[in-house]
Amino acid sequence: MKKIGVVLCGCGAQDGSEIHEATLTLYFLDKLDAHIEYFAPRKPQWHTIDHSTGKVHEEEHRQMLEESARISRGEIKDLSQAEASTLDGLIFPGGFGVAKNLCNFAFEKENCQVDKEVERIILSMHKAGKPQGFICIAPVLAARVLGMFHPNLTIGNDPSTAHILEQWGAKHITSRVDEIVYDSQQKIASTAAYMLGPTISKIAIGIEKLVTQIMEA
Amino acid sequence: MKKIGVVLCGCGAQDGSEIHEATLTLYFLDKLDAHIEYFAPRKPQWHTIDHSTGKVHEEEHRQMLEESARISRGEIKDLSQAEASTLDGLIFPGGFGVAKNLCNFAFEKENCQVDKEVERIILSMHKAGKPQGFICIAPVLAARVLGMFHPNLTIGNDPSTAHILEQWGAKHITSRVDEIVYDSQQKIASTAAYMLGPTISKIAIGIEKLVTQIMEA
Repeated sequence: MKKIGVVLCGCGAQDGSEIHEATLTLYFLDKLDAHIEYFAPRKPQWHTIDHSTGKVHEEEHRQMLEESARISRGEIKDLSQAEASTLDGLIFPGGFGVAKNLCNFAFEKENCQVDKEVERIILSMHKAGKPQGFICIAPVLAARVLGMFHPNLTIGNDPSTAHILEQWGAKHITSRVDEIVYDSQQKIASTAAYMLGPTISKIAIGIEKLVTQIMEA
Repeated sequence: MKKIGVVLCGCGAQDGSEIHEATLTLYFLDKLDAHIEYFAPRKPQWHTIDHSTGKVHEEEHRQMLEESARISRGEIKDLSQAEASTLDGLIFPGGFGVAKNLCNFAFEKENCQVDKEVERIILSMHKAGKPQGFICIAPVLAARVLGMFHPNLTIGNDPSTAHILEQWGAKHITSRVDEIVYDSQQKIASTAAYMLGPTISKIAIGIEKLVTQIMEA
């Protein structure tokens, strides 16, 4: 049984992990009999957004690990406990939380800094030659951490984001929502999901391909 | 295009709507080209639970509609705006929130009271002869509101819960997680989902059948 880590960063498209992308990742992993290990940083979210209005809840202070446990149904470990030696693959679902909590791409763009634990696990999985999947906006993490290896990846077709990923050394490949880009040398799979949308059954096609690739790599 | 309402009550298995059940419902509805309308009561949740520990957050006060918007990705209406005349079907995903927020079954058992807006829309959908789907613990709502019509339904195989549903007039049918019970006269479909589990790809089988039944009814 393959053990696949899934890294979450909250529970909701605007301030955490995108729920549909995360849930579909689990669904397709479970269909292929993966053993899923859940991780999230034990740190506060950047902010909390009322998803019905889009407004920031100034008085709310939520924790990534606690909120991510809503998606994992309880079981989840601090990302600092993730070890490449015990995993067969790692997947980062998307959501704005990736660009606000796991790094500061949403605010700093090309000067983006990646959370130290996120950087550590991505580097160690890469060094161990194990496959990693990045969904939606999460390829930003792969490009920032592994840019020196020039991985092929996709965030769909947004030219300004693609331009920044290329500044860091990645090769961006324009894609449709039902496609993945897989760099077999760097073992990096990516799919655009809600970077393109439009709806859950459409993003599921790319996510299923990505999960299958990670399980087969 | 069929217009199907989905009623949510928060975002998380322990204090709101079960995220996997809700997301899979949307996935299968979207696959069948349904137009989905999201509803939740504009009311506070009973409580907020830290899903990583199972402990109640005494200081947290979350709203059902706001938290449900995390699952719907923004668009959602107050349940008081749901009208049977504009819908072709209605689905209630499960989660403990159903038994804490949409009714008080979790605390009052056989003396359970159902939220007035929930009761209104279930009765009006039934009167209009339109199909309704109830997932996991949500058949409690159908049994409590429509017990006088003696609907066939399932919550899996839990004898104490089944006994209460039968006290209210429903006929409980023991089922597996990959099955649904459909009462074609009352147009009530139900499936056990995480009342049985064990994992997301298993509950998906019953949920897909339920969604297909609601779309075909």
